[in-house]
Amino acid sequence: MLASKRSAGQKMSFEGKEYVIEELTEESFKGVEIALFSAGGSISKKYGPLAAAQGTIVVDNSSAFRMDEGVPLVVPEVNADAMSHIKLSNKKGALIANPNCSTIICLMAATPLHRHAKVKRMVVSTYQAASGAGAAAMAELELQTKEVLEGKEPTCNIFNRQYAFNLFSHNSPVTGNGYNEEEMKLVKETRKIWSDNDVKVTATCIRVPVMRAHAESINLQFETPLDEEKAREILSQAEGLIVIDDRAGNNFPTPLEVSKKDAVAVGRIRQDVSQEGNHGLDIFVCGDQIRKGAALNAVQIAELLL
Amino acid sequence: MLASKRSAGQKMSFEGKEYVIEELTEESFKGVEIALFSAGGSISKKYGPLAAAQGTIVVDNSSAFRMDEGVPLVVPEVNADAMSHIKLSNKKGALIANPNCSTIICLMAATPLHRHAKVKRMVVSTYQAASGAGAAAMAELELQTKEVLEGKEPTCNIFNRQYAFNLFSHNSPVTGNGYNEEEMKLVKETRKIWSDNDVKVTATCIRVPVMRAHAESINLQFETPLDEEKAREILSQAEGLIVIDDRAGNNFPTPLEVSKKDAVAVGRIRQDVSQEGNHGLDIFVCGDQIRKGAALNAVQIAELLL
Repeated sequence: MLASKRSAGQKMSFEGKEYVIEELTEESFKGVEIALFSAGGSISKKYGPLAAAQGTIVVDNSSAFRMDEGVPLVVPEVNADAMSHIKLSNKKGALIANPNCSTIICLMAATPLHRHAKVKRMVVSTYQAASGAGAAAMAELELQTKEVLEGKEPTCNIFNRQYAFNLFSHNSPVTGNGYNEEEMKLVKETRKIWSDNDVKVTATCIRVPVMRAHAESINLQFETPLDEEKAREILSQAEGLIVIDDRAGNNFPTPLEVSKKDAVAVGRIRQDVSQEGNHGLDIFVCGDQIRKGAALNAVQIAELLL
Repeated sequence: MLASKRSAGQKMSFEGKEYVIEELTEESFKGVEIALFSAGGSISKKYGPLAAAQGTIVVDNSSAFRMDEGVPLVVPEVNADAMSHIKLSNKKGALIANPNCSTIICLMAATPLHRHAKVKRMVVSTYQAASGAGAAAMAELELQTKEVLEGKEPTCNIFNRQYAFNLFSHNSPVTGNGYNEEEMKLVKETRKIWSDNDVKVTATCIRVPVMRAHAESINLQFETPLDEEKAREILSQAEGLIVIDDRAGNNFPTPLEVSKKDAVAVGRIRQDVSQEGNHGLDIFVCGDQIRKGAALNAVQIAELLL
């Protein structure tokens, strides 16, 4: 376990065994076969290539290398083949990027349908949890909620606005075309992961006062017709996905239900009434942003290597 | 002021004057020129036609008559002409329906653009507040939030699930095509209000833990090109609408900002990267569900009559 000097010496346990956190240095990766990086872009940019040059296969959770040519961007259930040339047995270092959380959760549900009927265009609206902005953001949402319930002014350190009982456009910087960075990740990463530069994606990313799982409303346009019964069958057989689609009971995926769970949940599977000839579907997905949206996906990549 | 027997005799004040609530009976509408109904579908169905037959113009806030042929469905800024044949001076009763809150808020922003470039298709995802389900739902969200913060089991009387720090598919019944009633209102009411049976609409309606204003992510496809600068100009001149679209400051509409305000706010105005030739736009709107989404719109209809 590696971290900054500040954390070095602290102990953490994993599967019942205690580990002492060591300081990350240029020497840290000697003899390390796989390293899981989750320390932000600047640390990744400095130590990722350095570790790879020393023979380590780096699975990086930041956005630093995601769009780099030659760096596979992998969701194991979706495009494991993109990293098939990287093998532990080769004893050669490499960088593998973990996609953005919203992209992973979206593609877990969209890919099985894409394989069957080819997605031409996708319109995504997200409902993103506090966890995506880190533990401090979760704590602030909790603190603000208490304050608002007590009639006090909410403490605004992380987001510069009231988050409790409110929602707002995703806090990532807005780029030149008016999309924020989070939205452009969905646009660009989807193309790379699907190896399909023609797929059209638009996204609107919104932060909602939910603790730790993201939800996404996804509208799909297919090249070939796909009816909802077939879609439900495909989704119910897809790896890493569970279907919650009880219309009579009005029971569909919720962030709370998938929190601290590995599987991504999909429901509200229905033929889009705005498209003709069964060329469209609407679905609603929820996935734990910390698990499948980040840590679990990285661990799955490591498992693929092993 | 009319209500059920249970409320009769209570006093309420309006603009500084105190009124005694009377019991609603079949005799209540004699000599009444305009009646604002907001008591649910079954009361509207019983007393609406009865009042109209006695010469009263009824502005009804329920869904009882919205899709009835011959009953205008009106958002004054959008289709005031639909009720132009109904005049107080005629001394003839009539029914006028107030649209669903999500539809009103959506069309406040979409209509000015529709007039300019004709909307062919619209994909809407909603972020709906507790207020849409009534005062008891707002109270339950508050109570549940307190309970969850104290580590207690949340009280679930209204929605049968945890609402605090969670979100879920809109609680209206799911219809045969898999859309819930709230979503089909957006589909059908848009066609009626725009007098355009060809416009394609799909919607996914989600309840979020926000108190009293709805937000909507709207993707638009136009018949003729419309660039975002022109769209911003059109929206900034539209009646009842304010544009909040500060990309550099990451400041866009939020439910909290429009709460207890009359105007609907629109922002995140950008050219849709998934459509070619400037034929698409993405926008994000927020509107107070109780004001423009319900009561204000009904009062505006009455003002039009006056």
